[in-house]
Amino acid sequence: MHYVFADRTKNFTSSSVRDLLAIIQQGNVISFAGGLPSEDFFPVEQLQLAYEKVFASRAGALQYGVTEGFMPLRVLLKERMKMKGINSEPESILLTTGSQQAIDLFSKVMISPGDIVLTENPTYLAALQVFKAYEGQVCSVLGDEYGMDPQDLESKMKTLKPKFIYVVPTFSNPEGKAWSQERRITLIELAKKYNVLIIEDDPYGEIQFNDGETYPSLASLEQERTHVLYTSTFSKTVVPALRSGWITGPKEVICMMVQAKQASDLHSSSLDQQALYFLLRDFDLNGHIALLRRKYYERMNVMREYLENLEGFSFTIPKGGMFIWVEADEHLDMTRLLPEAVNHGVAYVPGSPFYVVNPQKNTFRLNFTHSTPEKLKLGMTRLSEVLSRVEKVEM
Amino acid sequence: MHYVFADRTKNFTSSSVRDLLAIIQQGNVISFAGGLPSEDFFPVEQLQLAYEKVFASRAGALQYGVTEGFMPLRVLLKERMKMKGINSEPESILLTTGSQQAIDLFSKVMISPGDIVLTENPTYLAALQVFKAYEGQVCSVLGDEYGMDPQDLESKMKTLKPKFIYVVPTFSNPEGKAWSQERRITLIELAKKYNVLIIEDDPYGEIQFNDGETYPSLASLEQERTHVLYTSTFSKTVVPALRSGWITGPKEVICMMVQAKQASDLHSSSLDQQALYFLLRDFDLNGHIALLRRKYYERMNVMREYLENLEGFSFTIPKGGMFIWVEADEHLDMTRLLPEAVNHGVAYVPGSPFYVVNPQKNTFRLNFTHSTPEKLKLGMTRLSEVLSRVEKVEM
Repeated sequence: MHYVFADRTKNFTSSSVRDLLAIIQQGNVISFAGGLPSEDFFPVEQLQLAYEKVFASRAGALQYGVTEGFMPLRVLLKERMKMKGINSEPESILLTTGSQQAIDLFSKVMISPGDIVLTENPTYLAALQVFKAYEGQVCSVLGDEYGMDPQDLESKMKTLKPKFIYVVPTFSNPEGKAWSQERRITLIELAKKYNVLIIEDDPYGEIQFNDGETYPSLASLEQERTHVLYTSTFSKTVVPALRSGWITGPKEVICMMVQAKQASDLHSSSLDQQALYFLLRDFDLNGHIALLRRKYYERMNVMREYLENLEGFSFTIPKGGMFIWVEADEHLDMTRLLPEAVNHGVAYVPGSPFYVVNPQKNTFRLNFTHSTPEKLKLGMTRLSEVLSRVEKVEM
Repeated sequence: MHYVFADRTKNFTSSSVRDLLAIIQQGNVISFAGGLPSEDFFPVEQLQLAYEKVFASRAGALQYGVTEGFMPLRVLLKERMKMKGINSEPESILLTTGSQQAIDLFSKVMISPGDIVLTENPTYLAALQVFKAYEGQVCSVLGDEYGMDPQDLESKMKTLKPKFIYVVPTFSNPEGKAWSQERRITLIELAKKYNVLIIEDDPYGEIQFNDGETYPSLASLEQERTHVLYTSTFSKTVVPALRSGWITGPKEVICMMVQAKQASDLHSSSLDQQALYFLLRDFDLNGHIALLRRKYYERMNVMREYLENLEGFSFTIPKGGMFIWVEADEHLDMTRLLPEAVNHGVAYVPGSPFYVVNPQKNTFRLNFTHSTPEKLKLGMTRLSEVLSRVEKVEM
């Protein structure tokens, strides 16, 4: 039979991340490809204890829940966000299956075919997939290490009349950069001037290496909470398997997203939500995050040392997050090089798929959180060998 | 700020089920409204044990998983479906956040705005919400207690060229009816003749009261597996909080749905999937389902007795599932009557929202699984009082 799919499927892109996950599962390859947190620090016992508390708690714990998610967890989330300067009410928090679903539901209620979405370039690959799946038109704004370029941003807001702006301002994926406070404020001012919503994707904000600086979230800078939606997740700070993310923003938008979520899956796993509630209530998550910061900083430095010894590659030392974004000599095509690297027992993500326009083929993303220091050393040795060999051959 | 939502949100319907869930949470009302399984029989200890096994199993258990879902669970599902005569391969099974998400993802990859979806009338409310959210046009087929009317079905297939047909053939929601084998076969033959996909929604098929009869699933009757997608869930047979459903069908369609799911939420809770795997492996789920069948049959009979003693109401005794569908005297509007029933301490779902066309205002749905026999008696006494009073007043 010939299956005729919906028009929107023409915009589905087969994901290179999927192929990469397949690579990861081959035993011998050391992968710096996935955006995976380290299993070494998963709070396994504490999480197991949290599940025991769910089972001991009440008969209704295993019954259907409400679409918005487990209310006591939303109350704790409100408090956690308050520590970051974000004002919210439990009623305007929606629990989602990872922050990926928050981006999906937001897009579902906002994007009509042809609507413009403004993003950074490069930006989070799987967000681009969502915008395209709803037949949105993605346009990127020029930017530098401090964030979006204000002039290009204003000009595109004015002429393109975007439906919303998607940004990852703190320790971004893939670039690992953090916006300056000035650029954050400018973005919000322009959003208000032109009445455009911002969705701030913040999965990495808490993985900060330098305690001295602060990177205020956009949501904390916009106290009226009319223009900024904020989404984050516990995938990086607790464990990914829980698939527990959330989004908060203007109540009217959240209400519409609740309706969308009800049709999408009724609600996310309420067992996981309840376990997360007990974990947040009884476990020192901030202490755990402090541990992650130290450990990931160590790992980042291991990777950095190898990169610094490589000639012909440039990168910015990340101030947090999970990635180093590397630029090779212009003539190198990192997608073409990947099979060779994999054959040599190491994997990375080529940068091209993260670009909305003008893909820089000579870029690639390295994850430093998932591998132990020993594996980082071995993998970086392998990668250095591949890269220096190629540099020599191609010069 | 004035928020401009996507066009598709105009088709979002504010759900009466949501309001009803609010009613349920008022302590004094006995609710026959929700489609809730009984908490009395949840395999709590076995499930807790299953989670312990997950935590004891392997470091990677809490890491990101693949979009398709935990492979060992898909292998067990293939075996479970084989017992029901359904041939499938683990590679053509997608694990979802409840079967609701299976319906959503299928619709996302199939429905372009304006595409026709054929359904029964009345049918599952939340499926209608999904089809409308993707701007599908829902048309209903005439039917009776045996299933869709073959002539009307063929005529609508011919003239309307539907994208797919959605059916709940076994112990349906809301009517609680089971299609005859003949009608099942006819549906499949017509689907093949006109090259139309069928999505068979089967959350209740295992809750069967009479061991003598068999209700072969459509997927088991179509061995080529080219035209039927089959979705089910463990929400009714294990616990709803797990949100673990699945769908199987032609590999090409499942692959497209996997792409859609990747953008929607990467994957469902893999902790829950792994726990479910250990539960299915080590627990006598079939024995548990046999218990549910007996207990739910008892409860159905308690409710039935009260209904039989009420004058002016007709219903068909369900052969399985969770619902009795009742037709009152034509002049009664069961939506208008609901507040009075709630005031009197009992709730039901009015039938109107389940209809695609020609809502029968005098119908309502009663759930008999969630309440204990004692609560069933008390609730049915209250309902009988309300209904006989109204009958008298309105005559």
